[in-house]
Amino acid sequence: MWPILVINIVLSVIGYSVILNVVPKFKDMFVKAHLSGLDLNKKHKPEIPEAAGVITSCIFLIVMFIFIPFPFSKHFFNKEWGFPHQEFVQFMAALLSICCMVLLGFADDVLNLKWRHKLLLPTVASLPLLMVYYTNFNSTTVIIPKPLRFVLGHDIDLSALYYVYMGMLAVFCTNAINIYAGVNGLEVGQSVVIAASLILFNVIELKGDCWPNHVFSLYFMIPFLFTSLALYQLNKYPAQVFVGDTFCYFSGMTIAVVAILGHFSKTALLFFIPQIANFIFSLPQLFHVLPCPRHRLPRLNLATGYLDPSVFQFKESSLNALGRLVLKVYRQLGLVQVEDKGKNGELSQSTNCTLINLALKLAGPTHEKNLAIGLMVLQVFG
Amino acid sequence: MWPILVINIVLSVIGYSVILNVVPKFKDMFVKAHLSGLDLNKKHKPEIPEAAGVITSCIFLIVMFIFIPFPFSKHFFNKEWGFPHQEFVQFMAALLSICCMVLLGFADDVLNLKWRHKLLLPTVASLPLLMVYYTNFNSTTVIIPKPLRFVLGHDIDLSALYYVYMGMLAVFCTNAINIYAGVNGLEVGQSVVIAASLILFNVIELKGDCWPNHVFSLYFMIPFLFTSLALYQLNKYPAQVFVGDTFCYFSGMTIAVVAILGHFSKTALLFFIPQIANFIFSLPQLFHVLPCPRHRLPRLNLATGYLDPSVFQFKESSLNALGRLVLKVYRQLGLVQVEDKGKNGELSQSTNCTLINLALKLAGPTHEKNLAIGLMVLQVFG
Repeated sequence: MWPILVINIVLSVIGYSVILNVVPKFKDMFVKAHLSGLDLNKKHKPEIPEAAGVITSCIFLIVMFIFIPFPFSKHFFNKEWGFPHQEFVQFMAALLSICCMVLLGFADDVLNLKWRHKLLLPTVASLPLLMVYYTNFNSTTVIIPKPLRFVLGHDIDLSALYYVYMGMLAVFCTNAINIYAGVNGLEVGQSVVIAASLILFNVIELKGDCWPNHVFSLYFMIPFLFTSLALYQLNKYPAQVFVGDTFCYFSGMTIAVVAILGHFSKTALLFFIPQIANFIFSLPQLFHVLPCPRHRLPRLNLATGYLDPSVFQFKESSLNALGRLVLKVYRQLGLVQVEDKGKNGELSQSTNCTLINLALKLAGPTHEKNLAIGLMVLQVFG
Repeated sequence: MWPILVINIVLSVIGYSVILNVVPKFKDMFVKAHLSGLDLNKKHKPEIPEAAGVITSCIFLIVMFIFIPFPFSKHFFNKEWGFPHQEFVQFMAALLSICCMVLLGFADDVLNLKWRHKLLLPTVASLPLLMVYYTNFNSTTVIIPKPLRFVLGHDIDLSALYYVYMGMLAVFCTNAINIYAGVNGLEVGQSVVIAASLILFNVIELKGDCWPNHVFSLYFMIPFLFTSLALYQLNKYPAQVFVGDTFCYFSGMTIAVVAILGHFSKTALLFFIPQIANFIFSLPQLFHVLPCPRHRLPRLNLATGYLDPSVFQFKESSLNALGRLVLKVYRQLGLVQVEDKGKNGELSQSTNCTLINLALKLAGPTHEKNLAIGLMVLQVFG
């Protein structure tokens, strides 16, 4: 096991340096292909190549393709043992799901897909994964947490529901990372932190009974960490490239894949606490109970060079009962800052419901670089 | 086997109608994303959305994902038989290679990749395929054709060389279809004809000893035929959409995949005769022994509405010895039409070395629609 992990690390490091070399060379190609966006939080709003995540994910895939033979090398030379097709198919299904997701993400970056495609396609992409889970493990029994045992018993077999849960996990992971974004380096930064945490968790669990699952997870997470780290170098403040939806999809799916096939899909959610908080916090805007502007990322205060929270505007009277209630609760809890101007007939405004804006409200105006670092520290605590 | 083939056909027909409905809706999205090209052989040179092949191939993948459980359904309900992971992994690897190729093709359409990427990446994409071939069959013995047996014996074990051959088959299939293009409907038309021929071949071989391989091939080829047929409806003269490199890559890889895993990689080449002829005929231009313009497709004669062969221009003196020799041989064989103007100091010109231009030279100016049909008839004979 250890020599193979070393090979994995070596290949990952090679991938890391290839990305650092290759991505800057591709910049012009991306701009020519109209794959670029404006960095809204810089003074001059420079045009930055978008969707660089596609290069990272392709290099991740290449690293994995080259790596695959190694874990099975002993079976190649000693035919008598029989080839472990069962393990091999896990690799294939995992890579297939990831590859599909990269394709989808890149299509989204290029074509700006609609929401219904964004929900339908990840579900389809995770089908092969679920099939492999079904044929290889099919364990859908969940241990009930102690406080609930007197109601539900010691464990419960969720059967089909568990597959729905895993299918949704993939959709959730991809979209959770996607909506917790908007500041240079944050998308990749959070993925790097999650990957590093998962690696730590896996290494600790290597001593346990389920160690083969955790080795499998390490095989994917180490290259993922290194390739993301390289991208982080290029995407951190001030960003040379944007990562695009491609990276969010790729990253979400990779994490979902190891969580599902490594049998720690519940534990994995613990590493997503900031994303879950952001998601729940955002729900009223996502479902249009509160108005939702196109971009909710913080805005640059040109005078100070710091970022201020962004706001949405509304008429008190145009909100329905639920909207007013949600806003009142959020305000009481100190989660949003509301300026009432209803009496003068002007529009009222409130800060947007994202974790980034909340952090800015609590911490006051901050420099973009420090904001990203702060939010990543939060992720580490998560 | 038969009920499962029926399910396969039903799913394929559904995919067919989905494509016919969905692609026109996506047209605007593609044009907005600057994924469009001019149809050079129409009077008004309309702007046509490019890379529609990406939708076809995604729907092909979705059809396959939904279909996969069916061939294994009997094993789901009867656990005692043991699950055939070996067959399952073939499906996964095949889809993984195809999916990688679609991603690469789409990236090529969007970014216009360089030649070295176009050769490197398909090779990497076929790695999982070769690994599955190695673990599942590893038969690298080739039966020698009768006339050569007295030199080489009855059969020969190519071992590693055979893998190189299969890796190159994938690269060849994708690029062969790509360079035999330029007239509305030709890329898809040739794929439809090849797919139909392969299906016929597989159905005939179902009675033979290797029937499981041919069933496997049918599972892929039937959805491929139907999805391509739908795209052909949209791409035939006058084209509503262009298929893009995405389709050529997807189509080439799908055919290579079934040829390799279905064990008829040599037979499959027979169906590629027009492509091989075109490739060999083009070689002097591809390797720049003769000058090679950016586009070699036929040009529209505005006066007649028919297509004329396109030409390249050269100075007799600027050609090297090899170039002059090749040109002389081609001219003697009647493959190109050369106009010598060297004596007046003007540039000489010759028709481009592609099968399309040769057909036009032999048949005289032709309407685009008839040309495409004629070339497909040629393919049928192939």
